[in-house]
Amino acid sequence: MCEEAPWYFWRRVIRMPENPSFKDAHGFSPGHITGFFAPFYRTDVLRTGSYGAGVCIAKGAWAEVEIEEADQRQICVKIEGVDAEPKVSIYALQNLIPENMRVNARIKLDMPVSQGFGMSAAGTLSACIAVCKILKKRYSDALRCAHAAEVHFRTGLGDVAGIYAGGYEMRIKPGIPPYGIIDRILNLPDETELVLCVIGKELETKNVLGNPDAVESCIKAGKKCLRKLRAEPTVRNFFKLSFEFAIETGLASREIKEAIIELHKIPVPASMIMLGNSVFALVRNRNEKKRVKDVLSSYGSVTATHVWAGF
Amino acid sequence: MCEEAPWYFWRRVIRMPENPSFKDAHGFSPGHITGFFAPFYRTDVLRTGSYGAGVCIAKGAWAEVEIEEADQRQICVKIEGVDAEPKVSIYALQNLIPENMRVNARIKLDMPVSQGFGMSAAGTLSACIAVCKILKKRYSDALRCAHAAEVHFRTGLGDVAGIYAGGYEMRIKPGIPPYGIIDRILNLPDETELVLCVIGKELETKNVLGNPDAVESCIKAGKKCLRKLRAEPTVRNFFKLSFEFAIETGLASREIKEAIIELHKIPVPASMIMLGNSVFALVRNRNEKKRVKDVLSSYGSVTATHVWAGF
Repeated sequence: MCEEAPWYFWRRVIRMPENPSFKDAHGFSPGHITGFFAPFYRTDVLRTGSYGAGVCIAKGAWAEVEIEEADQRQICVKIEGVDAEPKVSIYALQNLIPENMRVNARIKLDMPVSQGFGMSAAGTLSACIAVCKILKKRYSDALRCAHAAEVHFRTGLGDVAGIYAGGYEMRIKPGIPPYGIIDRILNLPDETELVLCVIGKELETKNVLGNPDAVESCIKAGKKCLRKLRAEPTVRNFFKLSFEFAIETGLASREIKEAIIELHKIPVPASMIMLGNSVFALVRNRNEKKRVKDVLSSYGSVTATHVWAGF
Repeated sequence: MCEEAPWYFWRRVIRMPENPSFKDAHGFSPGHITGFFAPFYRTDVLRTGSYGAGVCIAKGAWAEVEIEEADQRQICVKIEGVDAEPKVSIYALQNLIPENMRVNARIKLDMPVSQGFGMSAAGTLSACIAVCKILKKRYSDALRCAHAAEVHFRTGLGDVAGIYAGGYEMRIKPGIPPYGIIDRILNLPDETELVLCVIGKELETKNVLGNPDAVESCIKAGKKCLRKLRAEPTVRNFFKLSFEFAIETGLASREIKEAIIELHKIPVPASMIMLGNSVFALVRNRNEKKRVKDVLSSYGSVTATHVWAGF
């Protein structure tokens, strides 16, 4: 069984441009799906975050960044196919770019925004990583700036920390390392393919995080689910507890619940994506994948992806 | 530039066996090359480790593990092609396997042992990961047991922590997270392919770590190199400082130095692998790869690999 490598990865080789006054680099960040969470706020943004569990996916964000010297700091960010101002990325990059530089960033997202795929975190982190490569800063600088921007705009609390860990992850202590502590849930070799489906309209994370009742119920249910997951840290239990969380907090719409219950009949593990009107399901083979896709295609657009770099 | 995915990875799908009394799982760990290091000992093994920097490589270790109920704890480990008793793996697994279970582990190593590729850590960690999957334990349990065994036998101090981070890494604070703090050095897209060459006979890590003078000089040179790398955390600087370390500590043999100097003439970044009689070089394109291979093939066996899962 050991003879052939079960994973392969390689990178496209891109040469740096010849002109030394103009530098560019690329960054990638996986996407991140949250199964359940409990918000946690502190004055220090690096200690702010969430308890909870989630999974990193190969569908993520790609950034292409150019930096030039300029009279004053100037930050231009364009997210392909997204009209809104990319204020999270701009805020994060402001903390990285010196005053005499101009940065031009293009970000491409593999998944829609405000549907729980962590695209705000992934887009911002990918741009920060590319900038840090050029400016000879560290990975932790990119991580900190992306997390601080996410917390500032309430677009996410645990996505950047989850992305840091990779794979299926549990956030044991909120925040960014070294303050936050993140552990991985080990997955079996057939637990790496996920089917994703966007079912309803966009769900703004900040609208939920701004509602005290919703926050209260997330804290209660999220902490309980994390306790149960720590006692039995398996992928199946992660899905089971995520569904428990979706029901207990009342965040799942009628349609979301209906779709998940249909998937449970196949049976495959499935739950709601927090915070989005979306569903994710675990498929172990082609047959399951086909059946899940058949069920979900009547609800919305369906995509398959792999778990990103989990052990 | 964003249209096509620069990285791909997927896993082979392996189904669990039908018989529920018999469980098996697979584990993988990348290998790890240390560029420079400063040993650091504490009574607590989880706080013991090293300051330093290194890089994770796609050539690693694969484990296939079966667990059955038994009258008493029994641990059988077989490392393919290695005759010596795999005492590091056995020690690590003893901390994971309950008394009424028998474990049978087969480990395959992609690289030779005692040559600085972190094969002791990778082999042990891959087996621990596979066992943790079956016993529903967490990634951090695997990490802790593998690190403790490595420290116990002095086969490595920073490999497990380095593997945890992935990519090019800097160990800012020794030990395993959450005690140890590891940061990543961001690499450019063309800084992912490495050429490795084993030049001399095996170098037992514990022989160097058991020599007080050698330890003293590693501490002095290692801490200085880390300070310089933190000031400019780039891949090129990592190679430069690694070579400085190899020279200052006197660990590089005449032959190793000669090979590295020849590589610097190409020019490509290259240094000695700690602790092995081996050399690693960074190649950015086919032409450089061919020239590096041509130079090194007169010294020993040459392999190419990619950086493992670095951002």
